[in-house]
Amino acid sequence: MTGALFRSEIHEQPEALLRLLEHEREFAAVARAAAARAPNVVRLVGHGSSDAAASYGVYALGLLPGWTAMRDSISLTVYYRAKLDLSGSVVLALSQSGRTPDVVTYVERARERGAFTVAITNDPGSALASAADATLPLAAGSERSVAASKTYLNQLAAIVLFAGYLAGRGPEISDGLRRVADLVAGELEPLERAVAPVATAFAYVGRMYVIGRGLEFSSAREIALKLTETCRVAAEPLTSTDLSHGPIAALDSMFPVWTIASPDESLPALVEAAARVREAGATLVASGSAANEVDGAAWRLPVPAAPLSVLAPLLSVLPGQLFAAALAQAKGLDADLPERLSKVTFAQ
Amino acid sequence: MTGALFRSEIHEQPEALLRLLEHEREFAAVARAAAARAPNVVRLVGHGSSDAAASYGVYALGLLPGWTAMRDSISLTVYYRAKLDLSGSVVLALSQSGRTPDVVTYVERARERGAFTVAITNDPGSALASAADATLPLAAGSERSVAASKTYLNQLAAIVLFAGYLAGRGPEISDGLRRVADLVAGELEPLERAVAPVATAFAYVGRMYVIGRGLEFSSAREIALKLTETCRVAAEPLTSTDLSHGPIAALDSMFPVWTIASPDESLPALVEAAARVREAGATLVASGSAANEVDGAAWRLPVPAAPLSVLAPLLSVLPGQLFAAALAQAKGLDADLPERLSKVTFAQ
Repeated sequence: MTGALFRSEIHEQPEALLRLLEHEREFAAVARAAAARAPNVVRLVGHGSSDAAASYGVYALGLLPGWTAMRDSISLTVYYRAKLDLSGSVVLALSQSGRTPDVVTYVERARERGAFTVAITNDPGSALASAADATLPLAAGSERSVAASKTYLNQLAAIVLFAGYLAGRGPEISDGLRRVADLVAGELEPLERAVAPVATAFAYVGRMYVIGRGLEFSSAREIALKLTETCRVAAEPLTSTDLSHGPIAALDSMFPVWTIASPDESLPALVEAAARVREAGATLVASGSAANEVDGAAWRLPVPAAPLSVLAPLLSVLPGQLFAAALAQAKGLDADLPERLSKVTFAQ
Repeated sequence: MTGALFRSEIHEQPEALLRLLEHEREFAAVARAAAARAPNVVRLVGHGSSDAAASYGVYALGLLPGWTAMRDSISLTVYYRAKLDLSGSVVLALSQSGRTPDVVTYVERARERGAFTVAITNDPGSALASAADATLPLAAGSERSVAASKTYLNQLAAIVLFAGYLAGRGPEISDGLRRVADLVAGELEPLERAVAPVATAFAYVGRMYVIGRGLEFSSAREIALKLTETCRVAAEPLTSTDLSHGPIAALDSMFPVWTIASPDESLPALVEAAARVREAGATLVASGSAANEVDGAAWRLPVPAAPLSVLAPLLSVLPGQLFAAALAQAKGLDADLPERLSKVTFAQ
């Protein structure tokens, strides 16, 4: 079957999550070392899915330990060689392979400039791990699909476990992640059935918006990326606020919008944005554990509530992953052979 | 003529820039007050075009004074009420009207938490200006077009003038901005003629990528936003690196790509990305002062070189503004009446 690798790795996610949790003590130790630096700011760097995971880090670190975190510009440090003072910084560098060239160079420069650098990678023997002060293992296992799935989920888990230990709530977060692994295992089959008719209906879609806010902006970015690379849909991730400040003007009945609704402080804005989408005549997909709060959705793909609201994105991404796999098939594309992409990207 | 307001404000930009420069002493004074706080981080906030200008701020502040700057999450502070320590922060809050509700609330919260807050607005009597510790006037003059143009250009100018004074290079930057105002004045008419045939050729385009890197990522974001709101094109801004990490898979001959090439450290990656776009069979537009470095472009819309490389984005945005106005007309749309948008957005 086409897309078999992508699908099988989506289904491996519960066990991949549990494998990461076997390394809990390493997370506790690296969190202690990072906290000892009393940093001003955490700089997250990565490309593609890793950059989507970095968006999650901004919220997980802001909400759990109350630390300021940013997705840093790699080009400012690596290409422009800006003279930033990084002595008060912790760097979290995300790369599945640990071989992404400018992420490795970024870590080398940041370390020279005084940052405490942490590699988050599947390969503890990689160049990235060697360049960094410390490594947090993803332990997702060998990922062969070009489109990431289990690596992304384990990146979220790694970030939130690290953030949990920084906040003195490590065991609570790891218990929550164990519950999430169970919930993911139980949801994959029913969700796979639920996305099939949506994929059939969307077989000729060429463009979409994927709307998520706050914690769920990472899910919007990751789902849009899956749709773009495996289904060749021009899918753009937006916050509900971004949508209102321009893109709402472009909507029409040929331009479906996927929304991610989680029951947290970001929900009212998401529900309001969905109402505006509906008024524009666009087809609405409602996903997330608060999918039923979104009125007028043509399709609903709810997931179970997470044990802690900060963990919701680990469940919210699932319908998007499975939908991308199903839509690629409906479009006659092989999700395992995206055009012009390879597993490790060496382009700048 | 439809789109007359948008066009007339594009043409007002040289005089708007000069009006901002009449306030140079205020910029020097606010920069002194900000520097006295010896901040760890600058937090830029704004929506729509203001958020595109914030992307420029990350580079202008990184390159001139060597300060760390980030586009901050409004929702983390305003909706999630994350308990961040903002005592080492300077906030630059961007809003044309000074009435964007969650930007005003963000500034109130940030000030309570110890940040030094600066409003950058066209209305020094606005709620935003009242909420902030200091105000930098945009002085763009009343902007009536829903799609911003002169406000965006003056936001870039305000940010770089502030950054210049922080770096002890204020007069050099203001001299450069005066030169830019001259160059803009000289380029508008020729560029308006140059974009007309491109707009005719693109009349049926429904989706585009706009590629810019480093300093020019702000231009990519602003041009994509103009195309989305005035032309109903699903135009997504990407860095050249983003493109290689997924979206390159979606390209085909119906999916044109607009590139912004400036002669700085980001150019090799942009040129490489353009080559990949061409291999994918997509129509390529090359803009920016290094447009001639991009091989195989179907259309070229070069601009003059900026007097200082950090000022290039003030010129690079012009072809995009004028192209959006022309494309709206070619599509039979009124750029002054974008669907479902109003000048001040009160949606969350």
